[in-house]
Amino acid sequence: MIEKNEGVRSIVIFSGDLDRLMAGINIAIAAVSMGLPVNMYFTFWGLNALRKENFNTKGYGLFEKLMAIMMPAGPKKLTLSKLNMGGLGTWMMKKQMKIKQITMLPELIKIAQEAGVRFIGCQMTMNMMGIKRDALIDGLHFTGVAGYLGEAEKSHFNLFI
Amino acid sequence: MIEKNEGVRSIVIFSGDLDRLMAGINIAIAAVSMGLPVNMYFTFWGLNALRKENFNTKGYGLFEKLMAIMMPAGPKKLTLSKLNMGGLGTWMMKKQMKIKQITMLPELIKIAQEAGVRFIGCQMTMNMMGIKRDALIDGLHFTGVAGYLGEAEKSHFNLFI
Amino acid sequence: MIEKNEGVRSIVIFSGDLDRLMAGINIAIAAVSMGLPVNMYFTFWGLNALRKENFNTKGYGLFEKLMAIMMPAGPKKLTLSKLNMGGLGTWMMKKQMKIKQITMLPELIKIAQEAGVRFIGCQMTMNMMGIKRDALIDGLHFTGVAGYLGEAEKSHFNLFI
Repeated sequence: MIEKNEGVRSIVIFSGDLDRLMAGINIAIAAVSMGLPVNMYFTFWGLNALRKENFNTKGYGLFEKLMAIMMPAGPKKLTLSKLNMGGLGTWMMKKQMKIKQITMLPELIKIAQEAGVRFIGCQMTMNMMGIKRDALIDGLHFTGVAGYLGEAEKSHFNLFI
Repeated sequence: MIEKNEGVRSIVIFSGDLDRLMAGINIAIAAVSMGLPVNMYFTFWGLNALRKENFNTKGYGLFEKLMAIMMPAGPKKLTLSKLNMGGLGTWMMKKQMKIKQITMLPELIKIAQEAGVRFIGCQMTMNMMGIKRDALIDGLHFTGVAGYLGEAEKSHFNLFI
Repeated sequence: MIEKNEGVRSIVIFSGDLDRLMAGINIAIAAVSMGLPVNMYFTFWGLNALRKENFNTKGYGLFEKLMAIMMPAGPKKLTLSKLNMGGLGTWMMKKQMKIKQITMLPELIKIAQEAGVRFIGCQMTMNMMGIKRDALIDGLHFTGVAGYLGEAEKSHFNLFI
C-alpha cells in the first residue's frame, strides 16, 4: 500500500515528442490510479498533443496558419525523438506497440482525462504560437506560469518532461 | 495567497535551446516574484545562455577556440529545439514574440538576475568545455555537483530542463 | 554537513544522449557519496546505456534485431545531444575529457553501481523495444511504472532527464 502525501503531483509536458508524451502520461495514469491527484501542464510543443485533427484555421493570421500547418495536429501526428527516420521509425514502433498490446498515445490521453488527470494548457504558449482554445480538445483547463507555480508549491513531485 | 515552504527552488538548465531556456527562466521569475528563493544551475549546453557576445578567445587552446566558435555565444544566438529550419523558424518565432509583446530571453535573464534569482555555473562543464569565468556574464556563482546537491536537498522542487 | 531527508532520490533516465547520461549519473554518484539512497530508472532510450556490447541477437524477431542494430549498444556508443557532427563532436569531447581527467560514462556507471545506486530497468520499454534481460548489464533491478511511482512518492527529489 502506497503512503499518501498531501498535494497534487505536477507534470510539465514541454516536449511534443511521442515517446516523451507516452512516458509522462503513463506516469500520470499510474499516479491517478493510486488515488493521487495529478496536474499535467502542457506548454510549448507539448500543446501539439492536445490539438484537434483537421482544425479549420479560417480567420487565422499568416503566422498562426503557418504554425498550424507545420506543427503536428494531435497525438497521432507526433513522432519519436530518436530513430524517427522520416517517419519510418515511428511507424515501426507504433506497429510493434500494437503487436505488444501497449496502449497508444491517443488512447492514453482519453484514459488519463477520464481517470481524472487535470489537463492544463499554458496560456503564454497559446498566445505566442497563436493557438486558440477551440483548436484544442475539450475538457482542458488553462493557466499561466503563476497558476502552475501556485500548485507546484503544493506538489509532492514535479517533473519537467 | 501562496503557502510558503522552506528551502530554495532548484532549476537545472542543461539544455541550450531557446524554448527550454524561456520555460525555465519564466518559472524562476514567477517563483522569485512570489517571494520564493530560486537557484538556477547552468550546466552543459545551458551555459551557452550565459556566454558574453563577441568574447575574445586570445590565449585559448585549439579545443577551447573551436568550442567558443561552434557553441552559440549568449541568449541572442540560441535557437528553437523544434522548427528551427536553419534559423528561419527561430527568426519567425522571435518576430511573433515581439508582436505579442512577450519578453525575449536576453531581457528575461536580466529580469531574473535583478529579481534575485541566483545564477550558478557548473564548474565541471566549464572545465570540460574550456569555458573560463570571464567568458560568462557578470553576477554568477559557481559550484560543482556536490554544491548543487547540498542545496537540492533543501529544495522544495527540483526541475531538470 | 548536509541535512538528511527521508526517502530515496529518484532519477528517471529517459534520454540516451551521452551528455544527459553524464549529468544524471554524476548527480546520482554525488548523492550516494553523501549517504543518500538513489534509484535510477532507465526507460526508453536510457536503457541503451545499460546494453551489453556485441550482444548476440540469435533467436530475436525481425523488429528486435533491427532495434538492436539501430540503437547504440552500451555507454561507449552514446553520442552528444548537440554538436555530434556525425560523431566528430562526440569524439572531440571524449578526447578533451581524457585530457581534463573527467571520468567517462562507462566508468561512471561502474562507480555508481559499486557505490550503491540502484539501477532499475523499465519493463514496459523492454517489452515494447524487445530488449531482453540478458541483453543488459548485470546487477539491474526491473520494475514497471507503478513500482517507480511507489518509490517516487517516498522520494525527496525526482528528476526526469
